[in-house]
Amino acid sequence: MRIAIEDARALVVRVMIVNEHNNEYAGIIADHIIDCELRGLAYGGLARVISIVERLQRTGAPAKLVEVAHETPVSARLHGHDNLGYVVAHRATEIAIEKAKAMGLAMVGANQTWYTGMLSVFAEMAAGEGLVTMIASNATPWVAPHGAVEGRFGTNPICYGFPSLDEPIIWDIGTSSIMHAEAVLARRQGQELDAGRAFDARGNPTRDPDAALAGAFTPWGGHKGSGLGHVVQLLGVLAGSPIQPPELAEFGFVIIAMKPDLMMPEADYRAKVTEYAEAVRAAKPVAGGEAVRMPFDRSAAERRRRSAEGTFEVPDFVHERLQEFAS
Amino acid sequence: MRIAIEDARALVVRVMIVNEHNNEYAGIIADHIIDCELRGLAYGGLARVISIVERLQRTGAPAKLVEVAHETPVSARLHGHDNLGYVVAHRATEIAIEKAKAMGLAMVGANQTWYTGMLSVFAEMAAGEGLVTMIASNATPWVAPHGAVEGRFGTNPICYGFPSLDEPIIWDIGTSSIMHAEAVLARRQGQELDAGRAFDARGNPTRDPDAALAGAFTPWGGHKGSGLGHVVQLLGVLAGSPIQPPELAEFGFVIIAMKPDLMMPEADYRAKVTEYAEAVRAAKPVAGGEAVRMPFDRSAAERRRRSAEGTFEVPDFVHERLQEFAS
Repeated sequence: MRIAIEDARALVVRVMIVNEHNNEYAGIIADHIIDCELRGLAYGGLARVISIVERLQRTGAPAKLVEVAHETPVSARLHGHDNLGYVVAHRATEIAIEKAKAMGLAMVGANQTWYTGMLSVFAEMAAGEGLVTMIASNATPWVAPHGAVEGRFGTNPICYGFPSLDEPIIWDIGTSSIMHAEAVLARRQGQELDAGRAFDARGNPTRDPDAALAGAFTPWGGHKGSGLGHVVQLLGVLAGSPIQPPELAEFGFVIIAMKPDLMMPEADYRAKVTEYAEAVRAAKPVAGGEAVRMPFDRSAAERRRRSAEGTFEVPDFVHERLQEFAS
Repeated sequence: MRIAIEDARALVVRVMIVNEHNNEYAGIIADHIIDCELRGLAYGGLARVISIVERLQRTGAPAKLVEVAHETPVSARLHGHDNLGYVVAHRATEIAIEKAKAMGLAMVGANQTWYTGMLSVFAEMAAGEGLVTMIASNATPWVAPHGAVEGRFGTNPICYGFPSLDEPIIWDIGTSSIMHAEAVLARRQGQELDAGRAFDARGNPTRDPDAALAGAFTPWGGHKGSGLGHVVQLLGVLAGSPIQPPELAEFGFVIIAMKPDLMMPEADYRAKVTEYAEAVRAAKPVAGGEAVRMPFDRSAAERRRRSAEGTFEVPDFVHERLQEFAS
């Protein structure tokens, strides 16, 4: 079915309030979920809310709000207190922005969180304030390192954001060959995974989402990509995550924010980023290929299009579950 | 031929002194080159010195030493003054270590440099002081973005380093499908490149090193890896590199150093890094596969082995060229 953006946002807010989240947190979560839908990342959209509620029904809602545990002029360490990553990372990003604006450079880490969503959301917040960011978030060891069949690191997204004269340039990837939410969605929809994406609990290759979720995904990018998965896991550990977080809990989140004027006037940097992006978009494509895109170009274009339409498509079963949860 | 480690180091020092480098800089360069040889990265070892001297013969030696252009308590921006990346990055790392120890967090950028070598050398310096690092270095646009056939970013290495209880964990990769030095070495040795690694100047796939060096390499890791190449280019631009540096000049270098005690006691973090690395090494390998390695394990083992042997193998033509250069 098609749903109006505002109705979808209100539905997510209601579901989160029913699940003991305050208005502010429910709004932050809903904005993030809707941004995923507008950008065409449905696995992180309304469908993700089902997984969130299932997790909350299993564990109960977080008893406390996000809290600053320790800070210095250039850093903060937050207690996530089992709040959703959307709100923990949002608070971490706000603090990183504030400190980086004051000191030029800041690092904020947070522990005890889960489901951080698209890191690009936080990079975009900071880029809007003229800041360059590096962001990483670790997770339950759902992913086997290159050459192994047992999980050791999470789906572990990493992201860099750069302010420009218009839309920011944001690179935001997962370091697994498949996202956790994609596997969950495939299970809900009774679909098989692509070959080469997962091992079952015995270490045999599998295409069954259930078996994969009980086993391990493969990493993205062979040994190089697997190394980046380790990097994110160790950054999450620095933020206070255990080396192997339990199922959907105790993830770590790290953001580093940099003010370009440590190196050059912000306006000059923004202009150079735009100039570079335009040079890339003007590069000659491979024979028969489309125009070359910069990271985030497609997301930004999808969001413009869907925002203008005012509605988006959502599977009926997802909408029905959310309505049940909201009542 | 086999050469004693000390003889090789002395030979590189002599070549650099003949090429108008002072003792300190010649020593830093030689240590870096020898470290590459000991770690089994021959393309960055003595063979690289030929490329360095050819570049210096074309442009002349740098007229000035590395200089601090601007600094804050958490940052410094350096003028590389066309010095080799080995010495520029070494100085940048020293300053990053000093500032991160004082403030907890520091970022140092440098412009006007070239050939930065293995970023892991700098990550290892900082890890020895208990610091976590992120390091990146951009270059001449030898690499075509994913979907393009024209170069827009450099071979653009990126590196993260983590202190542990013993050898550090260091992830250090190039974002191109082939290293520039590998293509240069293939040209010197009259070998073809692997398929899929490069385009010629007209945008056609090529395996000829000459054509590739006049055209563009492909990126590593498809669109995700290509995005990381953009990230490194934009970090280099932040450090003062032009968006498209000219041939082997005006590269940018960035290091961010973090003191673990912003987040937890350093000893606790080192122990967790070691515990994680051991859990990874103990992961069940794929059927018929070798024991799982952490990034840097192979380098560290190669270096221990060659250091114990006291000698390493070098192609005769490389040794002969260096002896000519030294006299």
